[in-house]
Amino acid sequence: MRIAVVHGPNLRLLGRREPHLYGSNTLSEINAALEQAARRRGVELEIFQSNSEGEILDFLEGVSPRVQGVLINPGGLTHTSVCLRDALLGLGLPVVEVHLSNPMAREPFRHRSLVAPVAVGTVAGFGLQSYLLGLDGLIGYLQRET
Amino acid sequence: MRIAVVHGPNLRLLGRREPHLYGSNTLSEINAALEQAARRRGVELEIFQSNSEGEILDFLEGVSPRVQGVLINPGGLTHTSVCLRDALLGLGLPVVEVHLSNPMAREPFRHRSLVAPVAVGTVAGFGLQSYLLGLDGLIGYLQRET
Amino acid sequence: MRIAVVHGPNLRLLGRREPHLYGSNTLSEINAALEQAARRRGVELEIFQSNSEGEILDFLEGVSPRVQGVLINPGGLTHTSVCLRDALLGLGLPVVEVHLSNPMAREPFRHRSLVAPVAVGTVAGFGLQSYLLGLDGLIGYLQRET
Amino acid sequence: MRIAVVHGPNLRLLGRREPHLYGSNTLSEINAALEQAARRRGVELEIFQSNSEGEILDFLEGVSPRVQGVLINPGGLTHTSVCLRDALLGLGLPVVEVHLSNPMAREPFRHRSLVAPVAVGTVAGFGLQSYLLGLDGLIGYLQRET
Amino acid sequence: MRIAVVHGPNLRLLGRREPHLYGSNTLSEINAALEQAARRRGVELEIFQSNSEGEILDFLEGVSPRVQGVLINPGGLTHTSVCLRDALLGLGLPVVEVHLSNPMAREPFRHRSLVAPVAVGTVAGFGLQSYLLGLDGLIGYLQRET
Amino acid sequence: MRIAVVHGPNLRLLGRREPHLYGSNTLSEINAALEQAARRRGVELEIFQSNSEGEILDFLEGVSPRVQGVLINPGGLTHTSVCLRDALLGLGLPVVEVHLSNPMAREPFRHRSLVAPVAVGTVAGFGLQSYLLGLDGLIGYLQRET
Amino acid sequence: MRIAVVHGPNLRLLGRREPHLYGSNTLSEINAALEQAARRRGVELEIFQSNSEGEILDFLEGVSPRVQGVLINPGGLTHTSVCLRDALLGLGLPVVEVHLSNPMAREPFRHRSLVAPVAVGTVAGFGLQSYLLGLDGLIGYLQRET
Amino acid sequence: MRIAVVHGPNLRLLGRREPHLYGSNTLSEINAALEQAARRRGVELEIFQSNSEGEILDFLEGVSPRVQGVLINPGGLTHTSVCLRDALLGLGLPVVEVHLSNPMAREPFRHRSLVAPVAVGTVAGFGLQSYLLGLDGLIGYLQRET
Amino acid sequence: MRIAVVHGPNLRLLGRREPHLYGSNTLSEINAALEQAARRRGVELEIFQSNSEGEILDFLEGVSPRVQGVLINPGGLTHTSVCLRDALLGLGLPVVEVHLSNPMAREPFRHRSLVAPVAVGTVAGFGLQSYLLGLDGLIGYLQRET
Amino acid sequence: MRIAVVHGPNLRLLGRREPHLYGSNTLSEINAALEQAARRRGVELEIFQSNSEGEILDFLEGVSPRVQGVLINPGGLTHTSVCLRDALLGLGLPVVEVHLSNPMAREPFRHRSLVAPVAVGTVAGFGLQSYLLGLDGLIGYLQRET
Amino acid sequence: MRIAVVHGPNLRLLGRREPHLYGSNTLSEINAALEQAARRRGVELEIFQSNSEGEILDFLEGVSPRVQGVLINPGGLTHTSVCLRDALLGLGLPVVEVHLSNPMAREPFRHRSLVAPVAVGTVAGFGLQSYLLGLDGLIGYLQRET
Amino acid sequence: MRIAVVHGPNLRLLGRREPHLYGSNTLSEINAALEQAARRRGVELEIFQSNSEGEILDFLEGVSPRVQGVLINPGGLTHTSVCLRDALLGLGLPVVEVHLSNPMAREPFRHRSLVAPVAVGTVAGFGLQSYLLGLDGLIGYLQRET
Repeated sequence: MRIAVVHGPNLRLLGRREPHLYGSNTLSEINAALEQAARRRGVELEIFQSNSEGEILDFLEGVSPRVQGVLINPGGLTHTSVCLRDALLGLGLPVVEVHLSNPMAREPFRHRSLVAPVAVGTVAGFGLQSYLLGLDGLIGYLQRET
Repeated sequence: MRIAVVHGPNLRLLGRREPHLYGSNTLSEINAALEQAARRRGVELEIFQSNSEGEILDFLEGVSPRVQGVLINPGGLTHTSVCLRDALLGLGLPVVEVHLSNPMAREPFRHRSLVAPVAVGTVAGFGLQSYLLGLDGLIGYLQRET
Repeated sequence: MRIAVVHGPNLRLLGRREPHLYGSNTLSEINAALEQAARRRGVELEIFQSNSEGEILDFLEGVSPRVQGVLINPGGLTHTSVCLRDALLGLGLPVVEVHLSNPMAREPFRHRSLVAPVAVGTVAGFGLQSYLLGLDGLIGYLQRET
Repeated sequence: MRIAVVHGPNLRLLGRREPHLYGSNTLSEINAALEQAARRRGVELEIFQSNSEGEILDFLEGVSPRVQGVLINPGGLTHTSVCLRDALLGLGLPVVEVHLSNPMAREPFRHRSLVAPVAVGTVAGFGLQSYLLGLDGLIGYLQRET
Repeated sequence: MRIAVVHGPNLRLLGRREPHLYGSNTLSEINAALEQAARRRGVELEIFQSNSEGEILDFLEGVSPRVQGVLINPGGLTHTSVCLRDALLGLGLPVVEVHLSNPMAREPFRHRSLVAPVAVGTVAGFGLQSYLLGLDGLIGYLQRET
Repeated sequence: MRIAVVHGPNLRLLGRREPHLYGSNTLSEINAALEQAARRRGVELEIFQSNSEGEILDFLEGVSPRVQGVLINPGGLTHTSVCLRDALLGLGLPVVEVHLSNPMAREPFRHRSLVAPVAVGTVAGFGLQSYLLGLDGLIGYLQRET
Repeated sequence: MRIAVVHGPNLRLLGRREPHLYGSNTLSEINAALEQAARRRGVELEIFQSNSEGEILDFLEGVSPRVQGVLINPGGLTHTSVCLRDALLGLGLPVVEVHLSNPMAREPFRHRSLVAPVAVGTVAGFGLQSYLLGLDGLIGYLQRET
Repeated sequence: MRIAVVHGPNLRLLGRREPHLYGSNTLSEINAALEQAARRRGVELEIFQSNSEGEILDFLEGVSPRVQGVLINPGGLTHTSVCLRDALLGLGLPVVEVHLSNPMAREPFRHRSLVAPVAVGTVAGFGLQSYLLGLDGLIGYLQRET
Repeated sequence: MRIAVVHGPNLRLLGRREPHLYGSNTLSEINAALEQAARRRGVELEIFQSNSEGEILDFLEGVSPRVQGVLINPGGLTHTSVCLRDALLGLGLPVVEVHLSNPMAREPFRHRSLVAPVAVGTVAGFGLQSYLLGLDGLIGYLQRET
Repeated sequence: MRIAVVHGPNLRLLGRREPHLYGSNTLSEINAALEQAARRRGVELEIFQSNSEGEILDFLEGVSPRVQGVLINPGGLTHTSVCLRDALLGLGLPVVEVHLSNPMAREPFRHRSLVAPVAVGTVAGFGLQSYLLGLDGLIGYLQRET
Repeated sequence: MRIAVVHGPNLRLLGRREPHLYGSNTLSEINAALEQAARRRGVELEIFQSNSEGEILDFLEGVSPRVQGVLINPGGLTHTSVCLRDALLGLGLPVVEVHLSNPMAREPFRHRSLVAPVAVGTVAGFGLQSYLLGLDGLIGYLQRET
Repeated sequence: MRIAVVHGPNLRLLGRREPHLYGSNTLSEINAALEQAARRRGVELEIFQSNSEGEILDFLEGVSPRVQGVLINPGGLTHTSVCLRDALLGLGLPVVEVHLSNPMAREPFRHRSLVAPVAVGTVAGFGLQSYLLGLDGLIGYLQRET
C-alpha cells in the first residue's frame, strides 16, 4: 500500500509559527513520525510540501497512478481553493483531511472547508498526532474497502 | 487513566439507521471495540448513551470528578445544543468530538458545530474507527499534558 | 394497521394555551377524536405525549417495530431538533407532520421545519382537524404503498 | 356550500411531469376525485386552471361573490407571487393551500410560501390526496365558522 | 401632454379590499379624480388596469409612442417583476411610481421595489391622493424637462 | 392649520452639493416655494434646519404643541437614526417624509428608511417639488382626518 | 404571593464553572440569598433546577396554578428552545428572565433570546445579584398589576 | 429536427431598448438570422414571443410533442419565474438558455437564474449571436444524444 | 459614592410618548424616585439628559473624574451609536444599561445593543423600576469591587 | 487574427475526471478540435494550460501584445480568483469565458463568477462544444468590433 | 495651501482611553505634531474637534471655502454616519481618512467605513503617525492635482 | 534596517492597467521611488514581485531572517488568500499593507481584507505615494518599537 502525503502552504514554518496554535513540532519531525508509523504498518509514503496550489495540483495529478489514497493538510487552501477540491474529486482516490489546530475553534472564515465534503474523513486539533490518526484512519479505510 | 465516553441521541439506532451514512456497526460493537482498545492502552472507560440532553448533562456533571477526559459523539446535539457546549466547557476537562459520518459533507445545518470550539480535537467520517482514533487522540493529548 | 401518534412539548397545555392560535380543544378531546376516527378506519393507535425530546426519541425507537407509520405534532421541536429529524429518518417509517396552527403564518423562527423534509406530508392550520386530516393522509399513503 | 378550486401553472402537465415528485394522476383524475368527494359532502365546486397569474386573479375576483371558500394549489406562484397573496387576502374568503409534493423537502427557493400566511391551513405532500384532505379541511373550517 | 396611467394587479378590488390599508375609494373614483385633475391641468390620460403582467407590458409597449410619461401603481408586481422594470426602462419615458399604502411600513418582502430605481420619483401612503400627487409630480417633471 | 417643516443635515449645502442628484435649488428657494404654497392654502409653517440630530429632536419636542403635522426631509438620518424615529412616533403627530432624490435608486444603505414606517406617506425623487407634493399630501391628510 | 424560580441547565456547576464569567457563588448560595430576600418581602418561592428542557416544561405546567409569576435563568436554552418560549407564553403568567453573565457581551449565538420577547423584563450581568434584582422586578410588577 | 424558439417578455422592444446593453438588432432580424441558420442545418423552428408568463407556459405545453428541444431567452423571467422552471423541467426536453447581455455583469438580482439549473447549457453576452451559438449548441447536443 | 445617571434622546417625552411601551411616569418622577433611592443608600447622583449624542459624550467626559459608575438609558442610541460605546469604554468606569421597555421584544433593529457588550449589566422591561433595579445593581457591583 | 486559449487548473484530468459532469473528451481532443475550427476560420491560436494561477497571469501578461482576444476556461478559479479577474481586466482585451459543465446547476459556491462580469460573454454546459461555440462567439465579436 | 483637520468624537479622551489600542499620545500632542509637520511643508491647518456629528457638519460647511482639503479621523462616526459621508461628498474637496488603530482588525461593526468610499485615501493603524502620513498623503495629492 | 517589499499579482501591468484606478506609474518607477526614499532614510530594501501566491510565500519564508519588516501590496490576494494571511502572521514580523487604489471604494468583494487584521497598519488610495507613506509608517513603527 502506498499513500501520498501532502502538506499545504506555510507548513515549512512549523515550529516557529504561532506555537500556541500549531505546536512546536517541525515539519521534519512530523514527516519522521509519519514515516516511522507507515513503516510499522507496512505502508509506503510519498511526502510532498508546497506553498503553491498549482504545484500541489501537479503533484496530485502525477502521483495518483502510484498511490491508493491521499493524506492532506491543505492549510489555508482548505477554506478557499475550489481547484484543490476539484482535483481531489477528480483523482477518484480516498482522501483524509488533517489539521494541526481545530479550524472550527478559530476565525469564522476557517469554518468552511471546501475539502471536507470530498474527503472520507477529517482529523483536526491534535497537532502532530492529527497526521498519525489521519494516517491510521486512511489505512483502516483502505483495508475495509478491499 | 479513566475516560468518559458519551453517545448522544439516536446512537442506539446504529446498524439499522441509514447504513450508507453511519455504517453497519451496532452500538454494542462500537463499545466492545472501544473497551478492547482501552484495555490495550491501560485505560478505563465509563460509557454512557442517552437520547436526552438533560441526562447527558447530568452524567457529565456526575462523572467529571472520576475521569481525566471525555470522548463524545454528540449526534444531532452537535449543531443545536448551547447547553452541551456550556457543560463541556464548565467541566474543565479535555474533550474529543467524534462523528461516524462527516457532517461537513451533509446538509448545511450540520456545518455548524457548537462542540468543536470547546474540544481539543475532532475526528469525523471514519465510522466505528472515528471512535478509536478519537480515543487515541484523547489519550495522546492527556499523556502530553502530564 | 397500527400507527404511532406523538404529541410533542407543551401539548398538554391545549385548551388553556393561547386559544386564538391553538383552538379550544384539549389534548384528551384530540385523542378521543383520533381514536374514534382510527376505529372507524380499522386502525389501531399508540398515542404518546412528552415534553422531553429524549423521551420522544426513546418512544419512537421502542414503538417502531410495532407500527407502520408515525403521526407527529412536534411542537416547538419542529424548528430546532436535529435529533428528532435524525430519529424519524432512522426509523425508516413514513411520517406525517401535523400542526394545530400554521407556522408559516407566525414568527420567522417558525418558518424552518427540520421535520418536513423527512416527512411524507404536512397538514397545518386546521386545529384539531389537522390531526384527523393527517391521520387520513397517513392511512391513504400506507394503503397506496401496499 | 360552494367552493372555488384553483389549479395554478403547469398543473395540466400532471401525469407526464416528473411523476416521482407529483404522482401519476392527471388533472382530470384529480378533478373527478374532487367532484365525487364534494358531491358526497353536498358541496358544489367551481374548478379553474390557468398558467397565467393574471387569469387566476381575474377568476378569483369574479368567483368570490359566488363561493364561501377557496381551495388552491398555486404551483410555482406559491413562492413568487405577491399579487396572488394580495388577491387571496383581498377576497376576504377562507383559503386552503394544497401541494402535491412537499415544498419544504425540495429546493430552498420553495421553502418560502407567500400564500401560507394568508391561508387557513396547508396540506402538502400527499399527491392527489392533498386535494381531498384540503377540501375536507376547508369544509370543516366553513362548518365550524357558521 | 398625454400621460399613461397604469393600475397593476388587484386594483379592481379597491373599496372592498382591506380598507384600513388601501382606503375606501373604488378604482372608478380614483380614475374620476385623476381625469378631473388632468383636465384642469390640460393633460390627457390613457388609463389601463390589468391583473396580468403580460398585458401591462403589452399596453406599455403600445402606448409608448402616444404619451410623454407613465404614472403607475404596480401593486404586488413592485416587489417581484424584473420584466416590468425592464419594460419601464426600455420605454425611455419618465415614470412615476405611486402606492396607496406605504410599502416600507408593511411586510419585509414589500421593502424592495424593483420599480423605484427606474422611476423619476415615488409617492406612497396617501391613498387616492398618492395618484394625484404623483400626477402633479410627473407633470412638473415633464414641464421642467422641456 | 400649522405645520412644522424640518430640513435635516447637509441641506444648507443645496445648490452646490451634487446637483445631478439634488437639483440646483438652494434651501432658501425651497423655503420660499414652501411659504408661498402654504400661504396659498391658508397654512402657516414653522421651518427649521439643523445638522444636529439632537437639535432636531429638541425642535420637534418644542414645536409639537403648536403644530398639527410634520413635513420632514431627514437627509442621511433617514437610514440611521432610531432616535428620530422614536421622536416622530412619540409626538403623536402625522408625519410626511420627503426626499429630493430617490434613495431606492442609490446605494444599498439608503434602501432602509427608519422614518417611513412611522410616516403617513413618503414623496421622493422630485427635487424641490418633493416638498410641495409632500406639503399637499400632509394638508390633504389633515383635512381628511378632521 | 408565590413565585416559581427556575434554574436551567448547568446551573449546578456554578462556583466551579468558569468563575470569571459566572462568579464564585454556588447554586445553594444563590437559593439561600433568594429565600432570604423573598422572606423579607413576604413572598414564598418554589425553586427548581433541571438540566432537562422536558422536566422544566413539566415543572412549569405543574406549578402554574400555585404561583403568580416565574423567575427564570434559562441558561443555554435561552438561545435555542422554542419549546420553553411556548411554555412560558402558554402559562399566562408574568416571567422575568435573569442571567448571571451578560449574553450580549459574549458569542454571537448568545445574542438571540427566545425568552426575552415573552418576558416582562430581563436582568443580566450582575452575577448572584441578577437573581435578586429580577426577584424585586417581578414582585414590583406583580404589585403594580394588582 | 424541430426546435421551439421562445422569446420572453420585452423582447419586442429590441432595437430601441437600451442598445448599449442589448444591441441594435430588432427581434425580426434575430428571427431572420435564426431561420437562415436553421435552414442551413436542416432544422425547422417554431418561434414564439410573449410578454406573458402564462402564454409562454401554454405555448411550451402545446409545442412539446412537436419539437425535440427548446431555445429560450427568458428575459426578466430568468430571475423570478419558478413556474417557467417547472414547465421546462416538466416537458422533458433539452433546453438551451440564451441572453443578449451578460446577466452576471449586471445588477445582483440578475445573478440568480432559475432556468440555468434545468438547462443543458447557457450562452450569454453575445447579442444576436447568442441565439445562433445557442442554436448550434442545442443542435449539437441533440445530435450527440441520438 | 457618586454615580452619573444619563438619560438619552427622547426621554423628556416620557409620560406622553407611547405609554403602552414606556409607562406613564414622567422623567421628573423617575428622577425623583432615583434621588430618593440614592439618598436612602447614601449615594449621590449627577443626573443628565440630552437629545444630542455629542452632549452626552461631553457630559461623560466631564463627569468621569467625579463619579465611580454610570447608569445610562441610551434610548435609540443603544442600537446605533458606536461613539457612545467607545466613550463608555474609554471612561474606564463600570456602566449599567437600563431600558424602560424590553428592546428584545420589539423591532429587529432594536435587538442589537452596542452598549451591552461594554456594560457590567443590563436591566430592561420594568419601566421606572428598571432604573431603580439598575441603580441597585450598580451600587452592588461597586461595593463588591472595593 | 490570433487568439489566446487558456485552460485553467485540473483540465489535464479531463477524460478521467467525473465524466458525467465534464464529458469523456481529453484535453488533447479539445485542443485538436479548437485548432481545426480555428484553421477553418483563418484564426491562429496560442493554447496554454496550467494548474497555477500565477503561471496563468504570467502567460496572459506575456501573450497580450500578440493576440486580439482570450478564450478561457478558468476552472475552479472562476469562483475564487480576484487576481484572474484583475488580470483579464488589465489586459484590455475581449475575453470569452467557457465551461464544460454548467456551474449554475451545481453547488452554490459555483454560482458566483468573478470572471463573467469582465467577459464579453459566457458559454457553459455544452462540454467540448462550449469551447467551439465560445471561439465562434469571440471571433464574431472581434469581427463586429473592427 | 490650507487644510482642515477634523477630530471626531471621543478623541479628547486620547492618552487615557485604551492605550493598547489608541497609543499614549494626547490630542494636544497630535495637534502639535501636525502643526509642526504642516509648518515644515508650508501648509496652514484649521484644527477642529467635536463629539457632535452636527457640529462637525457645521464646521465642514463653514470651513470649506477656506481650505483645499480635509484630513479627518471620524472616530465611531466612520461606521454609522451617512450624514458625514454626504457632507464630505457635498463639499467637493479631497478628503483623507485616518485612524489611530486599524478598524479592520477589530469588531465586525468597524469593518464598514461609510467615509472610505468618498475619500481619496485612508491611513490606519499607525497611532499618531497615521495623522502625519495622512497629512503627507493629502498634500501630495493636492500638489499632483495642481 | 532592512525591509522586504512585496508586490502581489498583476502589479507588473501597472502603467497600462486601468490608469484611472491605479495611476500611470510603472512598477519600475514605484521601485525607483521606494529605493530613493529608503536610501534617504538609511534603510535597505529587498523588492520582490510575483503573480504566484506560492512564490510570495516562498519569498517571505526565505527573506524573513534578513529583514525587520514587510511592506506588501497583496493585490487581489488581499481579499482571498488565507495562506498569505497565515504566512504574514507566521513570520512574526511587522507588516504594512498598501494599495494603490482604495478597495473600500470599489466592488463589495474588495471590502474584506484578510491581510489588514494581521498588519500594523494600512495605507490605501494614494497611488505610488501609498508605498512611500507605507514605508514611512513601517520605519516609524520599527523605530518606536526599538
